[in-house]
Amino acid sequence: MHHPVTNKRGDIICSAVTNLDLHDIARAAKTYGVRRYFVVTPLVDQQALAQKILDHWTTGPGAAYNPDRKEALLLARVAASLDIAIDEAQRLCGQKPAVVVTDARQRPGAISYDDLTKLIKNGKPCILVFGTAWGLTEDFIEKADFVLEPLFGPGSYNHLPVRSAAAIILDRIAGQKR
Amino acid sequence: MHHPVTNKRGDIICSAVTNLDLHDIARAAKTYGVRRYFVVTPLVDQQALAQKILDHWTTGPGAAYNPDRKEALLLARVAASLDIAIDEAQRLCGQKPAVVVTDARQRPGAISYDDLTKLIKNGKPCILVFGTAWGLTEDFIEKADFVLEPLFGPGSYNHLPVRSAAAIILDRIAGQKR
Repeated sequence: MHHPVTNKRGDIICSAVTNLDLHDIARAAKTYGVRRYFVVTPLVDQQALAQKILDHWTTGPGAAYNPDRKEALLLARVAASLDIAIDEAQRLCGQKPAVVVTDARQRPGAISYDDLTKLIKNGKPCILVFGTAWGLTEDFIEKADFVLEPLFGPGSYNHLPVRSAAAIILDRIAGQKR
Repeated sequence: MHHPVTNKRGDIICSAVTNLDLHDIARAAKTYGVRRYFVVTPLVDQQALAQKILDHWTTGPGAAYNPDRKEALLLARVAASLDIAIDEAQRLCGQKPAVVVTDARQRPGAISYDDLTKLIKNGKPCILVFGTAWGLTEDFIEKADFVLEPLFGPGSYNHLPVRSAAAIILDRIAGQKR
């Protein structure tokens, strides 16, 4: 999600699309069995930029250069809003997905990784929402069906990039240990 | 590690330093309680580039702009070889670290995440080695003390970026669930 998110001063902004986020999140999505990855921005020029990157790797020269990358980026779609993404997810899954917001702050009533994994295993489609920049707005978070537990290591530092947080959270939900 | 790694044809190369890898791996390292993050390249101009980036964020304008980023990148050191990194780790920890290599391929005798976590909790310093480009060379991997189990999701796709693999592996070793 590139909007509505906040900047470091807390203003509501629309953040810029980051090329590497598209690649990294698509690759994690493909690794962990995600069915669709939506890049959500209301800005038409940013939508065009994101689509140009996706096209390069899925139908352009990048597709032959790196077929593994193509396979991952084929999961990605540009959407103007979360509602549009939810509608597409509903068509794909045959039922309305639960909106599960991720956030770096601890909140009362947050859903645990084990409970979210169970929910998904029981057949509930879920759309995991990741904010860019300084994170999703409070208004937006309050409207979600679930807020996921934040990630923690042994200390209190929790300033992970969105692409790393997405990879870790997908591994916590769908990672296998052999 | 930027050398010895392979390119897509299997040639042994020295890969280029990637700005975002430094940030992402340092942020994951800080989150999960890593004591030192070494960027290993034998190329003097690449060492200078990496050091310039680190300086910008730790003592230059970036330090005031983003103190959280400074805190993470303070963990990073540029090293010309793994042996130099091992020596510094040994000075830091008071004993020689075990070299634990990560690799996307399944290998007989690989150490599990649970066993590696136990080893670290029992006080053995470990240096986790991540290859860039198409991964570390076979010769290099064979010389390591341990090879870590690869990451898997539910399917067979395993083409994660090194910065995502590092984040996930650190979470598997040191992540907390509340």
